[in-house]
Amino acid sequence: MRVLGVDPGLTRCGVGVVEGVPGRQCTPIAYEVVQSDPDEELAHRLLRLDGRLAELIALHQPDGVAVERVFSQHNVRTVMGTAQAGAVAILAAARAGLPVALYTPSEVKAAVTGSGTADKAQVTAMVTRLLRLDAPPRPADAADALALAICHVWRGGTRDKVAAALQQYRRGR
Amino acid sequence: MRVLGVDPGLTRCGVGVVEGVPGRQCTPIAYEVVQSDPDEELAHRLLRLDGRLAELIALHQPDGVAVERVFSQHNVRTVMGTAQAGAVAILAAARAGLPVALYTPSEVKAAVTGSGTADKAQVTAMVTRLLRLDAPPRPADAADALALAICHVWRGGTRDKVAAALQQYRRGR
Repeated sequence: MRVLGVDPGLTRCGVGVVEGVPGRQCTPIAYEVVQSDPDEELAHRLLRLDGRLAELIALHQPDGVAVERVFSQHNVRTVMGTAQAGAVAILAAARAGLPVALYTPSEVKAAVTGSGTADKAQVTAMVTRLLRLDAPPRPADAADALALAICHVWRGGTRDKVAAALQQYRRGR
Repeated sequence: MRVLGVDPGLTRCGVGVVEGVPGRQCTPIAYEVVQSDPDEELAHRLLRLDGRLAELIALHQPDGVAVERVFSQHNVRTVMGTAQAGAVAILAAARAGLPVALYTPSEVKAAVTGSGTADKAQVTAMVTRLLRLDAPPRPADAADALALAICHVWRGGTRDKVAAALQQYRRGR
């Protein structure tokens, strides 16, 4: 199973692609941070992010996309940009016909470190070890996206199955 | 000048198209509310909204799109959906190569009622009068989208010119 993880952000959006099966070590395929200039018009920033995500999806052909779930409790100054970037990522995946799973930061941290309250350094260290990288991913923001992708591989796309079953049930009512 | 206005919302997204020139009465072209089921998967909701907005843009061929600017001070329970729907609207316009202008609710209220603190009933009453409609727009949520479109026509796309000039300046540095 190949998964593309997205840690949404308007100025810096982490993207990481890994391949693997539940319970086994994952193989890193690619990672990068899509950046945009805060001085630029919002429409151009969203368009650039959308375009790059579509390119990465076409290039790496993932089976599914995992996106960090954004909460309104986050820093109010950045939450709008994060929500907007998240919407672009979810839409890019849906447009490509891919299933999308959303995970909270604690779910991701728990999946890769065993603790839902792990700090950024712990997550980065575990991602580096789990993917047998020689050094921590650079730019650093890519580590969270790789962690999301690993989390989704290990969950074995369970969420999609649950969501699909629920939807089937609701449609059938 | 033909403008498509969007009052973003995930469950109910108002869309209104008007035609006119600054300082003159505007002609209503179309309006509707794009709805989605809160029980449905977020990816499907965003995809449906994106698809319908792309259809409406292709159908009505606006010269520009005006979207309500979302603030994080809004109701925290709905702000995420509003931000996500807003991002989809801005992206749909940008993908179609159209300039996008963002207006705060007070700017729109001031433009159509003369007061930045006008209530929803006043905005609806003025939109009905300004567009010479026989009755207030139904569904009611479409009134705000029509107000946004009127506001942008009356501003004569000034924002785009300012934004374009600024961008030209920044690129030239």
